[in-house]
Amino acid sequence: MKQDNNIPYKIYLDEQEMPKQWYNVRADMKNKPAPLLNPETHQPMTAEELEEVFCKELVQQELDDTNPYIDIPQEIRDFYKMYRPAPLVRAYCLEEKLQTPAKIYYKFEGNNTSGSHKLNSAIAQAYYAKQQGLKGVTTETGAGQWGTALSMACSYFDLDCQVYMVKCSYEQKPFRREVMRTYGAKVTPSPSMTTEVGKKILAEHPGTTGSLGCAISEAVEQATTHEGYRYVLGSVLNQVLLHQSIIGLETKAALDKYGVKADIIIGCAGGGSNLGGLISPFMGEKLRGEADYKFIAVEPASCPSLTRGKYAYDFCDTGKVCPLQKMYTLGSGFIPSANHAGGLRYHGMSSVLSQLFDDGLMEARSVEQTEVFAAAEQFARIEGILPAPESSHAIKVAIDEAMKCKETGEEKTIVFGLTGTGYFDMYAYESFHDGKMKDYIPTDEELAASLAGLPKMD
Amino acid sequence: MKQDNNIPYKIYLDEQEMPKQWYNVRADMKNKPAPLLNPETHQPMTAEELEEVFCKELVQQELDDTNPYIDIPQEIRDFYKMYRPAPLVRAYCLEEKLQTPAKIYYKFEGNNTSGSHKLNSAIAQAYYAKQQGLKGVTTETGAGQWGTALSMACSYFDLDCQVYMVKCSYEQKPFRREVMRTYGAKVTPSPSMTTEVGKKILAEHPGTTGSLGCAISEAVEQATTHEGYRYVLGSVLNQVLLHQSIIGLETKAALDKYGVKADIIIGCAGGGSNLGGLISPFMGEKLRGEADYKFIAVEPASCPSLTRGKYAYDFCDTGKVCPLQKMYTLGSGFIPSANHAGGLRYHGMSSVLSQLFDDGLMEARSVEQTEVFAAAEQFARIEGILPAPESSHAIKVAIDEAMKCKETGEEKTIVFGLTGTGYFDMYAYESFHDGKMKDYIPTDEELAASLAGLPKMD
Repeated sequence: MKQDNNIPYKIYLDEQEMPKQWYNVRADMKNKPAPLLNPETHQPMTAEELEEVFCKELVQQELDDTNPYIDIPQEIRDFYKMYRPAPLVRAYCLEEKLQTPAKIYYKFEGNNTSGSHKLNSAIAQAYYAKQQGLKGVTTETGAGQWGTALSMACSYFDLDCQVYMVKCSYEQKPFRREVMRTYGAKVTPSPSMTTEVGKKILAEHPGTTGSLGCAISEAVEQATTHEGYRYVLGSVLNQVLLHQSIIGLETKAALDKYGVKADIIIGCAGGGSNLGGLISPFMGEKLRGEADYKFIAVEPASCPSLTRGKYAYDFCDTGKVCPLQKMYTLGSGFIPSANHAGGLRYHGMSSVLSQLFDDGLMEARSVEQTEVFAAAEQFARIEGILPAPESSHAIKVAIDEAMKCKETGEEKTIVFGLTGTGYFDMYAYESFHDGKMKDYIPTDEELAASLAGLPKMD
Repeated sequence: MKQDNNIPYKIYLDEQEMPKQWYNVRADMKNKPAPLLNPETHQPMTAEELEEVFCKELVQQELDDTNPYIDIPQEIRDFYKMYRPAPLVRAYCLEEKLQTPAKIYYKFEGNNTSGSHKLNSAIAQAYYAKQQGLKGVTTETGAGQWGTALSMACSYFDLDCQVYMVKCSYEQKPFRREVMRTYGAKVTPSPSMTTEVGKKILAEHPGTTGSLGCAISEAVEQATTHEGYRYVLGSVLNQVLLHQSIIGLETKAALDKYGVKADIIIGCAGGGSNLGGLISPFMGEKLRGEADYKFIAVEPASCPSLTRGKYAYDFCDTGKVCPLQKMYTLGSGFIPSANHAGGLRYHGMSSVLSQLFDDGLMEARSVEQTEVFAAAEQFARIEGILPAPESSHAIKVAIDEAMKCKETGEEKTIVFGLTGTGYFDMYAYESFHDGKMKDYIPTDEELAASLAGLPKMD
């Protein structure tokens, strides 16, 4: 295997090279992301209002669009040391197999028990909840990565953790549920009879297998009706992208250490937590005019919020109990098909990424799941890591871009985010191997119908 | 969190610090492990005889008890770079939680898709098979870690891989099977109708759910009756311990880098691949009189080959097609209980470790599975890694030793092998959480009965 000069297969930063601050990309954005609105008054949510749902310090982070750097508390940095730095891997084997002149790197976030990058924000949110003296937190989980991450974080800080898990995932992924249980979390299939909104949805749709939007409504209600609890969320929010900037900061530090400049940066995008975190510091350079990069958000063709959605204020949840958020959305009533990338099955996209995309600072591409799993299997065999279906969206487009380089002969440097592992997604792989996996693309009529449900703004 | 001077949470060797040679502990043993015997003549197996079953180069390694160092071919070192070096982790969080003066380190081998250390030998065996121009290899797998590792290795070198998986595991662990399939392996539940020995066993025991010994017989028959195939094994053999010495060599290099001297080294022991690999270079120092260490082999009370077995020549497999091996054994007819640590459910122990144990150079301890899972859950919550049931045997004894230090006030340095992750063992965790897990200790009568089946030697 030919290795470039001094560049190892895997770049691990030393402990003292790890970031001590998160980077807040909003500080460098000329067009700031639009504020959250009160769903009744349509006025920007105040800190006081938000603090009924979220932890106090997290509300500050949510609203802060001026400070570029925010210190990472020592306790969180200690926890990060348990599973970080994540390696930046040079995909030498993949390059050789593709016979491409492109240099391919991936930031691997799957080397922890939650199996994904979600732990980066989970530990931060648990820490601030503990600091505030709360008893516990509530949340929802779809594929289960976020719920697992939060369970681990709460266990570390000895906080109660209540997870509403979308019912179909709860039933299809008993092992995910069991991992959360190992970390002491209470996992409830959603919709459930434990909340008013859950009861209402069950009464209206008795046989429903649930949705992320519905589980969010239940978790928010559970938090706001119980003393000492707050709601936490694993994606979409500004605070989450802030915490996830650790991914991009480490990636940039690792590249800088070896004098490598990225040309194309690729990430899968569901709510935007991974992509936003990965690109943040690079986007900062672009916004400040210091460097240029091509950013590509990859989403499933079955849930194409950036590529086919509308940039508008919308509800974040089915029960419409959350603030309104301006984002690229398919409409909160959009029901995504049973795509196996559960983590990308959300109707909206982070406000930060939505604004950057709207400003033409980022591209978006949608891919179908059978081609994604073909790329996943190819990658597993060549690079030895079994990727999560979500992450494999980025793999697919990274390979596409590397093959373009093969045609043109360009030696571009491609960096993509490998957010997690697929150990709990073997049903999906089985369906792919057995040739039973189908693609699904919503029709224009279906999208128009769900977009018709957007809230009427003044 | 208080950190010792300059010692990070995780020690990663640089790429150029990774071992370039394996260490062969047999070279330093005064009492060499006894040779494999032909089951019919009871004469030592010749290289020619062994080459009918194993790859040529691997036979040389199997028989070599004089060369202390053997070069790792560049192709294998390249593959090692994809997932190694494995981190040596300082268990700061566990130490704090236990309030022990002991310094605890663990070598974590679970950061690869096969989920364990097995890949270290799988890639070596696949490499030599490829070098010899073979079409493929056959093997057996119980818990599935070895089968997964071999699938990955064969996929990398484009070799056919046929895995006989113990039927009960095949049915209970469909996801393991699916991972092997992702890597292109052919997985057959054992006993099967694809071999004569399988047909015979099925005729005698129509409802059997299989055993490791039976799957070995099938895999050996399959290899020896097909042109261009050889049999490979994931544990017990000398060659496997040789390849696994990479674990101990990296561990020693990492400790040396920070000037740390281990006092106690602990590993779980089924066939001995992990323990043998971990302790090899340290044992070498002890054998040469350069340093002293306390080594502890930890085995399940349900399958206690070292602590309650007999040191004698025995069959390695149920079908009695393999050479005889002198080892601590419970008898090849011993039927271990349905302990959840599938990887520790073998009736015999590596010849190397058996001889070292017999010479008093190593201790052994047996533990029951409910206490093992309690330690596993404790560890998962504190150190963030969900351990495999096998690995958790070592965790249990490491915690015991750390608690002894707490009593005595001794600041001992404890190193243990964390061989893998438990993502595919959630049924076992569920059984533990639900209070359904049972312990099982064979009676003296049961052991006497199975030991009565040892072959009569001259």
